[in-house]
Amino acid sequence: MNYSENVPRKSINAIDRLTSLFSRLPGLGKKSAGRLVYHILDADPGYARSLGEELLAFHQAIKRCSRCGSYTESDPCAICSDVSREKVICVVERAQDVRVIEESKEFRGHFHVLGGVIAPLEGVNPENLAIGELIVRVRREEIQEVILAMNPTVEGDTTALYIQKVLKDTGVPVTRLASGLPVGGDLEYADRLTLSRSFRGRIQM
Amino acid sequence: MNYSENVPRKSINAIDRLTSLFSRLPGLGKKSAGRLVYHILDADPGYARSLGEELLAFHQAIKRCSRCGSYTESDPCAICSDVSREKVICVVERAQDVRVIEESKEFRGHFHVLGGVIAPLEGVNPENLAIGELIVRVRREEIQEVILAMNPTVEGDTTALYIQKVLKDTGVPVTRLASGLPVGGDLEYADRLTLSRSFRGRIQM
Repeated sequence: MNYSENVPRKSINAIDRLTSLFSRLPGLGKKSAGRLVYHILDADPGYARSLGEELLAFHQAIKRCSRCGSYTESDPCAICSDVSREKVICVVERAQDVRVIEESKEFRGHFHVLGGVIAPLEGVNPENLAIGELIVRVRREEIQEVILAMNPTVEGDTTALYIQKVLKDTGVPVTRLASGLPVGGDLEYADRLTLSRSFRGRIQM
Repeated sequence: MNYSENVPRKSINAIDRLTSLFSRLPGLGKKSAGRLVYHILDADPGYARSLGEELLAFHQAIKRCSRCGSYTESDPCAICSDVSREKVICVVERAQDVRVIEESKEFRGHFHVLGGVIAPLEGVNPENLAIGELIVRVRREEIQEVILAMNPTVEGDTTALYIQKVLKDTGVPVTRLASGLPVGGDLEYADRLTLSRSFRGRIQM
């Protein structure tokens, strides 16, 4: 995704440029982006400065953990480095899912970020996901259980089945979060109770 | 408003800091702010860079027009400098209302930004608004009509009545945008047709 294109610098003014940039974010249309821009104009200039500085340093401050693939400031990340955690890997689609599960405090093991789900129509095949790395970790880190926490969608189900198959040889039990997550929904918007139920009711695959 | 406070630099990481900053914008809760942050992480780093640079330069690029009070990159603004415009002043509450009316293309005169409406309970009295400047402009710029485009709220009505009174001595006709704008609503969200109707049906005060 290249969001920096199509913002000519000279022809339009700073308000239009900032509105145009904000309106590329998810859930922000042209009008709501405009509201943000005028809000920033009316606010203390220190706010725009803080936000600008954070954004400029952002991609340099945050990298992916070389072990689990989640976003982190140090590599390996704090979770991977924590030896007190259980030898269980929770496999998630995206890095932000790690945060959602961490905040629920329902799980005290390790994570593995796939980077998506198998979706052949969109050109995402197993080799595009961090599945090979998962197999290596399961063997090397003496993992006792793999919990699949993909979203309960068709692609999530397909991916879960695929991973269960490729992990069979390792002999490690593979479970999946119980439904309880609304079908077709998004892990990110699950409340703590729903997540808790999903962890406790997870099913053998 | 000081938004740069309460964001300790060391104790939390870059993702949390950026989420916290975004969540101070209107209409963005903690979850939707988090979504934006992860979206930015997944996007091309050029996007965060563009947005960061725009924000850092923003308050320096944009100032208030010393004549009409709207946000501009040059002073006086392009509208105030345009001698081909009609000698009519449209009085609005906030600078963003200028843009809304300009985009409707229903009005080809000048603007005057009050900077709010009379609201004694919130400590906003006539002397806190750019009403004195309006009187000076009406006399000096040989204005033929003043159109009051405050939002149709109690405070907007009060302010309109007050301005109509103080402009009586100038002999310049003072009109107000017709209702057609939904009562209690916000000028910013009016569609073009509603705005058009309001301009055409404006009433003598």
